[in-house]
Amino acid sequence: MSRQAGRGTEAKKVSAELFTLTYGALVAQLIKDYESDEEVNKQLDKMGYNIGVRLIEDFLARSSVGRCHDFRETADVIAKVGFKMFLGITPTVANWSPSGDEFSLIVDNNPLTEFVELPDGHQNLNYSNLLGGVLRGSLEMVQMEVDVTFLQDALKGDSTTEIRLKFIRRLEDALPAGEE
Amino acid sequence: MSRQAGRGTEAKKVSAELFTLTYGALVAQLIKDYESDEEVNKQLDKMGYNIGVRLIEDFLARSSVGRCHDFRETADVIAKVGFKMFLGITPTVANWSPSGDEFSLIVDNNPLTEFVELPDGHQNLNYSNLLGGVLRGSLEMVQMEVDVTFLQDALKGDSTTEIRLKFIRRLEDALPAGEE
Repeated sequence: MSRQAGRGTEAKKVSAELFTLTYGALVAQLIKDYESDEEVNKQLDKMGYNIGVRLIEDFLARSSVGRCHDFRETADVIAKVGFKMFLGITPTVANWSPSGDEFSLIVDNNPLTEFVELPDGHQNLNYSNLLGGVLRGSLEMVQMEVDVTFLQDALKGDSTTEIRLKFIRRLEDALPAGEE
Repeated sequence: MSRQAGRGTEAKKVSAELFTLTYGALVAQLIKDYESDEEVNKQLDKMGYNIGVRLIEDFLARSSVGRCHDFRETADVIAKVGFKMFLGITPTVANWSPSGDEFSLIVDNNPLTEFVELPDGHQNLNYSNLLGGVLRGSLEMVQMEVDVTFLQDALKGDSTTEIRLKFIRRLEDALPAGEE
Protein backbone atom coordinates (compact mmCIF):
# COMPACT_ATOMS: atom_id res chain seq x y z
CA MET A 1 0.00 0.00 0.00
CA SER A 2 1.54 3.31 -0.97
CA ARG A 3 1.23 6.01 1.60
CA GLN A 4 2.26 9.64 1.62
CA ALA A 5 1.15 10.51 5.13
CA GLY A 6 3.42 12.82 7.04
CA ARG A 7 3.38 11.00 10.36
CA GLY A 8 6.41 9.27 11.72
CA THR A 9 6.60 5.56 12.21
CA GLU A 10 6.63 5.96 15.99
CA ALA A 11 3.05 5.54 17.19
CA LYS A 12 1.84 8.21 19.58
CA LYS A 13 0.56 6.96 22.90
CA VAL A 14 -1.81 8.06 25.61
CA SER A 15 -2.31 6.64 29.09
CA ALA A 16 -4.28 3.42 29.25
CA GLU A 17 -6.17 4.69 32.30
CA LEU A 18 -7.44 7.76 30.45
CA PHE A 19 -8.55 5.47 27.62
CA THR A 20 -10.23 3.05 30.05
CA LEU A 21 -12.18 5.83 31.75
CA THR A 22 -13.18 7.48 28.46
CA TYR A 23 -14.37 4.14 27.13
CA GLY A 24 -16.29 3.65 30.36
CA ALA A 25 -18.04 6.98 29.81
CA LEU A 26 -19.01 5.84 26.33
CA VAL A 27 -20.47 2.54 27.54
CA ALA A 28 -22.32 4.30 30.36
CA GLN A 29 -23.82 6.74 27.87
CA LEU A 30 -25.00 3.89 25.62
CA ILE A 31 -26.54 2.09 28.59
CA LYS A 32 -28.47 5.29 29.30
CA ASP A 33 -29.53 5.59 25.64
CA TYR A 34 -30.64 2.08 24.75
CA GLU A 35 -33.24 -0.21 26.21
CA SER A 36 -31.40 -3.52 26.17
CA ASP A 37 -27.88 -4.86 26.61
CA GLU A 38 -28.22 -6.45 23.18
CA GLU A 39 -28.79 -3.04 21.63
CA VAL A 40 -25.78 -1.61 23.49
CA ASN A 41 -23.66 -4.53 22.26
CA LYS A 42 -24.81 -3.81 18.72
CA GLN A 43 -23.91 -0.12 18.98
CA LEU A 44 -20.48 -0.90 20.44
CA ASP A 45 -19.87 -3.36 17.63
CA LYS A 46 -20.89 -0.77 15.04
CA MET A 47 -18.65 1.91 16.57
CA GLY A 48 -15.80 -0.60 16.75
CA TYR A 49 -16.33 -1.54 13.11
CA ASN A 50 -15.97 2.09 12.04
CA ILE A 51 -12.86 2.46 14.20
CA GLY A 52 -11.37 -0.75 12.77
CA VAL A 53 -11.88 0.49 9.22
CA ARG A 54 -9.73 3.52 10.14
CA LEU A 55 -7.15 1.78 12.33
CA ILE A 56 -6.17 -0.80 9.72
CA GLU A 57 -4.60 1.94 7.60
CA ASP A 58 -2.50 3.05 10.53
CA PHE A 59 -1.64 -0.56 11.21
CA LEU A 60 -0.48 -1.27 7.66
CA ALA A 61 1.48 1.95 7.53
CA ARG A 62 3.29 1.42 10.83
CA SER A 63 3.86 -2.30 10.82
CA SER A 64 5.87 -4.01 8.14
CA VAL A 65 3.23 -6.70 7.90
CA GLY A 66 2.37 -7.88 4.39
CA ARG A 67 -0.46 -10.04 3.16
CA CYS A 68 -1.04 -13.05 5.43
CA HIS A 69 -0.87 -16.45 3.75
CA ASP A 70 -3.33 -18.21 5.98
CA PHE A 71 -5.62 -17.68 8.96
CA ARG A 72 -2.95 -18.95 11.36
CA GLU A 73 -0.62 -16.19 10.28
CA THR A 74 -3.49 -13.70 10.58
CA ALA A 75 -4.13 -14.84 14.16
CA ASP A 76 -0.48 -14.32 15.10
CA VAL A 77 -0.35 -10.88 13.51
CA ILE A 78 -3.54 -9.77 15.28
CA ALA A 79 -2.27 -10.91 18.67
CA LYS A 80 1.42 -10.01 18.47
CA VAL A 81 1.37 -6.92 16.28
CA GLY A 82 -2.16 -5.48 16.30
CA PHE A 83 -3.11 -5.78 19.97
CA LYS A 84 0.45 -4.84 20.95
CA MET A 85 0.40 -1.70 18.80
CA PHE A 86 -3.01 -0.42 19.83
CA LEU A 87 -3.63 -1.73 23.35
CA GLY A 88 -0.13 -2.56 24.53
CA ILE A 89 -1.01 -6.18 25.32
CA THR A 90 -0.43 -9.51 23.59
CA PRO A 91 -3.30 -11.98 23.90
CA THR A 92 -2.62 -15.70 23.57
CA VAL A 93 -3.85 -17.42 20.43
CA ALA A 94 -5.53 -20.68 21.46
CA ASN A 95 -8.27 -23.24 20.93
CA TRP A 96 -7.95 -23.70 17.17
CA SER A 97 -10.77 -25.57 15.49
CA PRO A 98 -9.60 -28.79 13.76
CA SER A 99 -10.21 -27.26 10.33
CA GLY A 100 -8.20 -24.14 11.20
CA ASP A 101 -10.98 -21.65 10.53
CA GLU A 102 -11.60 -20.64 14.16
CA PHE A 103 -9.39 -19.56 17.03
CA SER A 104 -9.62 -17.72 20.32
CA LEU A 105 -7.76 -14.72 21.64
CA ILE A 106 -7.24 -15.15 25.37
CA VAL A 107 -7.03 -11.63 26.74
CA ASP A 108 -5.55 -11.03 30.17
CA ASN A 109 -5.19 -7.50 31.50
CA ASN A 110 -7.72 -6.11 29.04
CA PRO A 111 -7.15 -2.35 29.31
CA LEU A 112 -10.81 -1.69 28.50
CA THR A 113 -11.97 -3.33 31.68
CA GLU A 114 -9.38 -2.33 34.24
CA PHE A 115 -11.11 -1.08 37.42
CA VAL A 116 -14.49 -1.81 35.79
CA GLU A 117 -17.39 -3.58 37.43
CA LEU A 118 -20.48 -4.45 35.42
CA PRO A 119 -23.46 -2.54 36.77
CA ASP A 120 -26.21 -4.71 38.25
CA GLY A 121 -28.77 -6.05 35.84
CA HIS A 122 -26.50 -6.00 32.79
CA GLN A 123 -25.45 -9.62 32.55
CA ASN A 124 -25.97 -9.62 28.79
CA LEU A 125 -23.73 -6.64 28.22
CA ASN A 126 -20.55 -7.44 26.31
CA TYR A 127 -18.67 -4.55 27.82
CA SER A 128 -15.65 -4.87 25.51
CA ASN A 129 -17.74 -5.39 22.39
CA LEU A 130 -16.02 -2.45 20.69
CA LEU A 131 -13.00 -4.75 20.31
CA GLY A 132 -15.07 -7.26 18.38
CA GLY A 133 -16.18 -4.53 16.01
CA VAL A 134 -12.62 -3.27 15.57
CA LEU A 135 -11.49 -6.79 14.61
CA ARG A 136 -14.42 -7.21 12.22
CA GLY A 137 -13.92 -3.83 10.56
CA SER A 138 -10.16 -4.00 10.20
CA LEU A 139 -10.18 -7.56 8.85
CA GLU A 140 -12.88 -6.66 6.34
CA MET A 141 -10.55 -4.01 4.95
CA VAL A 142 -8.00 -6.71 4.21
CA GLN A 143 -10.67 -8.81 2.50
CA MET A 144 -11.52 -11.14 5.34
CA GLU A 145 -15.04 -11.56 6.61
CA VAL A 146 -14.99 -12.89 10.18
CA ASP A 147 -17.48 -13.52 12.96
CA VAL A 148 -16.41 -12.30 16.38
CA THR A 149 -18.01 -13.43 19.64
CA PHE A 150 -17.14 -13.25 23.32
CA LEU A 151 -17.03 -16.82 24.68
CA GLN A 152 -15.80 -15.82 28.12
CA ASP A 153 -15.65 -12.48 29.87
CA ALA A 154 -13.63 -11.88 33.03
CA LEU A 155 -16.08 -9.08 33.90
CA LYS A 156 -18.82 -11.69 34.23
CA GLY A 157 -16.81 -13.86 36.56
CA ASP A 158 -15.14 -16.07 33.94
CA SER A 159 -11.52 -16.89 34.63
CA THR A 160 -10.38 -15.01 31.53
CA THR A 161 -11.70 -13.12 28.52
CA GLU A 162 -11.92 -15.25 25.38
CA ILE A 163 -12.72 -13.67 22.03
CA ARG A 164 -13.57 -16.18 19.29
CA LEU A 165 -12.82 -15.38 15.65
CA LYS A 166 -14.35 -17.47 12.91
CA PHE A 167 -13.26 -17.07 9.30
CA ILE A 168 -16.29 -16.77 7.04
CA ARG A 169 -14.95 -15.94 3.59
CA ARG A 170 -12.47 -13.97 1.54
CA LEU A 171 -14.03 -10.84 0.03
CA GLU A 172 -12.62 -10.93 -3.49
CA ASP A 173 -14.48 -7.98 -4.91
CA ALA A 174 -13.65 -5.55 -2.15
CA LEU A 175 -10.15 -4.71 -3.40
CA PRO A 176 -9.63 -0.97 -3.33
CA ALA A 177 -8.59 0.68 -6.59
CA GLY A 178 -4.85 0.61 -7.14
CA GLU A 179 -4.18 -2.53 -5.09
CA GLU A 180 -2.92 -5.62 -6.86
CA MET B 1 -0.46 10.24 50.25
CA SER B 2 0.03 6.64 51.27
CA ARG B 3 -0.83 4.12 48.65
CA GLN B 4 -0.87 0.34 48.67
CA ALA B 5 -1.94 -0.24 45.08
CA GLY B 6 -0.32 -3.14 43.32
CA ARG B 7 0.35 -1.46 40.01
CA GLY B 8 3.86 -0.69 38.86
CA THR B 9 5.11 2.81 38.46
CA GLU B 10 5.37 2.39 34.68
CA ALA B 11 2.16 3.78 33.18
CA LYS B 12 0.46 1.52 30.66
CA LYS B 13 -0.15 3.05 27.28
CA VAL B 14 -2.52 2.59 24.37
CA SER B 15 -2.32 4.04 20.88
CA ALA B 16 -3.34 7.68 20.59
CA GLU B 17 -5.24 6.92 17.39
CA LEU B 18 -7.44 4.33 19.11
CA PHE B 19 -8.13 6.86 21.86
CA THR B 20 -8.89 9.62 19.33
CA LEU B 21 -11.37 7.44 17.46
CA THR B 22 -13.04 6.17 20.63
CA TYR B 23 -13.39 9.71 21.91
CA GLY B 24 -14.84 10.67 18.52
CA ALA B 25 -17.46 7.93 18.89
CA LEU B 26 -18.36 9.32 22.31
CA VAL B 27 -18.78 12.89 21.02
CA ALA B 28 -20.80 11.67 18.02
CA GLN B 29 -23.10 9.75 20.37
CA LEU B 30 -23.64 12.82 22.55
CA ILE B 31 -24.41 14.95 19.49
CA LYS B 32 -27.06 12.38 18.60
CA ASP B 33 -28.44 12.41 22.14
CA TYR B 34 -28.64 16.09 22.99
CA GLU B 35 -30.41 18.99 21.35
CA SER B 36 -27.76 21.68 21.57
CA ASP B 37 -24.00 22.03 21.43
CA GLU B 38 -24.17 23.69 24.84
CA GLU B 39 -25.75 20.57 26.31
CA VAL B 40 -23.10 18.35 24.68
CA ASN B 41 -20.38 20.63 26.11
CA LYS B 42 -21.96 20.27 29.53
CA GLN B 43 -22.06 16.47 29.31
CA LEU B 44 -18.44 16.29 28.14
CA ASP B 45 -17.42 18.53 31.02
CA LYS B 46 -19.32 16.32 33.48
CA MET B 47 -17.75 13.13 32.12
CA GLY B 48 -14.34 14.78 32.19
CA TYR B 49 -14.89 15.87 35.78
CA ASN B 50 -15.60 12.27 36.83
CA ILE B 51 -12.54 11.07 34.93
CA GLY B 52 -10.35 13.77 36.51
CA VAL B 53 -11.47 12.74 40.00
CA ARG B 54 -10.15 9.25 39.22
CA LEU B 55 -7.01 10.19 37.26
CA ILE B 56 -5.61 12.44 39.97
CA GLU B 57 -4.99 9.40 42.16
CA ASP B 58 -3.04 7.75 39.41
CA PHE B 59 -1.20 10.98 38.83
CA LEU B 60 -0.18 11.40 42.48
CA ALA B 61 0.83 7.75 42.71
CA ARG B 62 2.99 7.76 39.58
CA SER B 63 4.51 11.21 39.68
CA SER B 64 6.69 12.33 42.53
CA VAL B 65 4.86 15.63 42.60
CA GLY B 66 4.06 17.03 46.03
CA ARG B 67 1.82 19.87 47.05
CA CYS B 68 2.26 22.91 44.78
CA HIS B 69 3.21 26.15 46.51
CA ASP B 70 1.48 28.50 44.12
CA PHE B 71 -0.63 28.58 40.97
CA ARG B 72 2.47 29.04 38.80
CA GLU B 73 3.88 25.79 40.03
CA THR B 74 0.49 24.15 39.47
CA ALA B 75 0.48 25.39 35.88
CA ASP B 76 3.90 23.89 35.21
CA VAL B 77 2.99 20.57 36.76
CA ILE B 78 -0.23 20.34 34.75
CA ALA B 79 1.57 21.06 31.47
CA LYS B 80 4.84 19.20 31.96
CA VAL B 81 3.80 16.26 34.11
CA GLY B 82 0.02 15.82 33.78
CA PHE B 83 -0.50 16.33 30.06
CA LYS B 84 2.73 14.45 29.35
CA MET B 85 1.67 11.46 31.46
CA PHE B 86 -1.86 11.14 30.15
CA LEU B 87 -1.82 12.53 26.61
CA GLY B 88 1.86 12.38 25.71
CA ILE B 89 2.05 16.09 24.89
CA THR B 90 3.37 19.16 26.71
CA PRO B 91 1.29 22.31 26.20
CA THR B 92 2.90 25.71 26.61
CA VAL B 93 1.92 27.73 29.68
CA ALA B 94 1.26 31.30 28.54
CA ASN B 95 -0.72 34.52 28.89
CA TRP B 96 -0.58 34.90 32.68
CA SER B 97 -2.93 37.49 34.13
CA PRO B 98 -1.10 40.28 35.99
CA SER B 99 -2.36 39.01 39.34
CA GLY B 100 -1.18 35.46 38.61
CA ASP B 101 -4.59 33.83 39.02
CA GLU B 102 -5.16 32.95 35.34
CA PHE B 103 -3.09 31.33 32.64
CA SER B 104 -3.54 29.57 29.33
CA LEU B 105 -2.44 26.17 28.13
CA ILE B 106 -1.53 26.40 24.44
CA VAL B 107 -2.15 22.93 23.07
CA ASP B 108 -0.61 21.92 19.76
CA ASN B 109 -1.11 18.42 18.40
CA ASN B 110 -4.10 17.78 20.64
CA PRO B 111 -4.56 14.00 20.38
CA LEU B 112 -8.32 14.35 20.89
CA THR B 113 -8.73 16.22 17.63
CA GLU B 114 -6.30 14.54 15.27
CA PHE B 115 -8.04 13.76 11.95
CA VAL B 116 -11.22 15.38 13.33
CA GLU B 117 -13.39 17.87 11.46
CA LEU B 118 -16.29 19.54 13.23
CA PRO B 119 -19.56 18.48 11.65
CA ASP B 120 -21.51 21.29 9.96
CA GLY B 121 -23.78 23.31 12.19
CA HIS B 122 -21.88 22.68 15.40
CA GLN B 123 -19.91 25.89 15.76
CA ASN B 124 -20.72 26.07 19.48
CA LEU B 125 -19.40 22.60 20.20
CA ASN B 126 -16.29 22.55 22.36
CA TYR B 127 -15.13 19.24 20.97
CA SER B 128 -12.35 18.75 23.53
CA ASN B 129 -14.45 19.85 26.48
CA LEU B 130 -13.72 16.58 28.26
CA LEU B 131 -10.25 17.99 28.91
CA GLY B 132 -11.72 20.97 30.70
CA GLY B 133 -13.71 18.66 32.94
CA VAL B 134 -10.66 16.51 33.65
CA LEU B 135 -8.72 19.60 34.74
CA ARG B 136 -11.60 20.81 36.89
CA GLY B 137 -12.16 17.42 38.54
CA SER B 138 -8.54 16.59 39.21
CA LEU B 139 -7.71 20.05 40.59
CA GLU B 140 -10.75 19.93 42.86
CA MET B 141 -9.33 16.75 44.41
CA VAL B 142 -6.23 18.69 45.37
CA GLN B 143 -8.37 21.43 46.90
CA MET B 144 -8.32 23.89 44.04
CA GLU B 145 -11.49 25.21 42.48
CA VAL B 146 -10.81 26.45 38.95
CA ASP B 147 -12.80 27.70 36.00
CA VAL B 148 -11.82 26.20 32.64
CA THR B 149 -12.79 27.70 29.28
CA PHE B 150 -11.70 27.25 25.68
CA LEU B 151 -10.53 30.64 24.37
CA GLN B 152 -9.34 29.31 21.02
CA ASP B 153 -9.96 26.04 19.24
CA ALA B 154 -7.92 24.89 16.25
CA LEU B 155 -10.94 22.83 15.15
CA LYS B 156 -12.86 26.07 14.65
CA GLY B 157 -10.16 27.60 12.50
CA ASP B 158 -8.18 29.31 15.27
CA SER B 159 -4.42 29.12 14.89
CA THR B 160 -4.09 27.03 18.05
CA THR B 161 -6.11 25.61 20.93
CA GLU B 162 -6.00 27.75 24.06
CA ILE B 163 -7.46 26.49 27.32
CA ARG B 164 -7.82 29.14 30.01
CA LEU B 165 -7.62 28.22 33.69
CA LYS B 166 -8.75 30.67 36.32
CA PHE B 167 -8.11 30.02 40.00
CA ILE B 168 -11.27 30.57 42.03
CA ARG B 169 -10.48 29.45 45.56
CA ARG B 170 -8.80 26.91 47.77
CA LEU B 171 -11.23 24.32 49.12
CA GLU B 172 -10.16 24.05 52.72
CA ASP B 173 -12.84 21.70 53.97
CA ALA B 174 -12.52 19.13 51.19
CA LEU B 175 -9.56 17.29 52.70
CA PRO B 176 -10.16 13.56 52.54
CA ALA B 177 -9.85 11.61 55.78
CA GLY B 178 -6.29 10.65 56.58
CA GLU B 179 -4.65 13.55 54.79
CA GLU B 180 -2.74 16.13 56.78
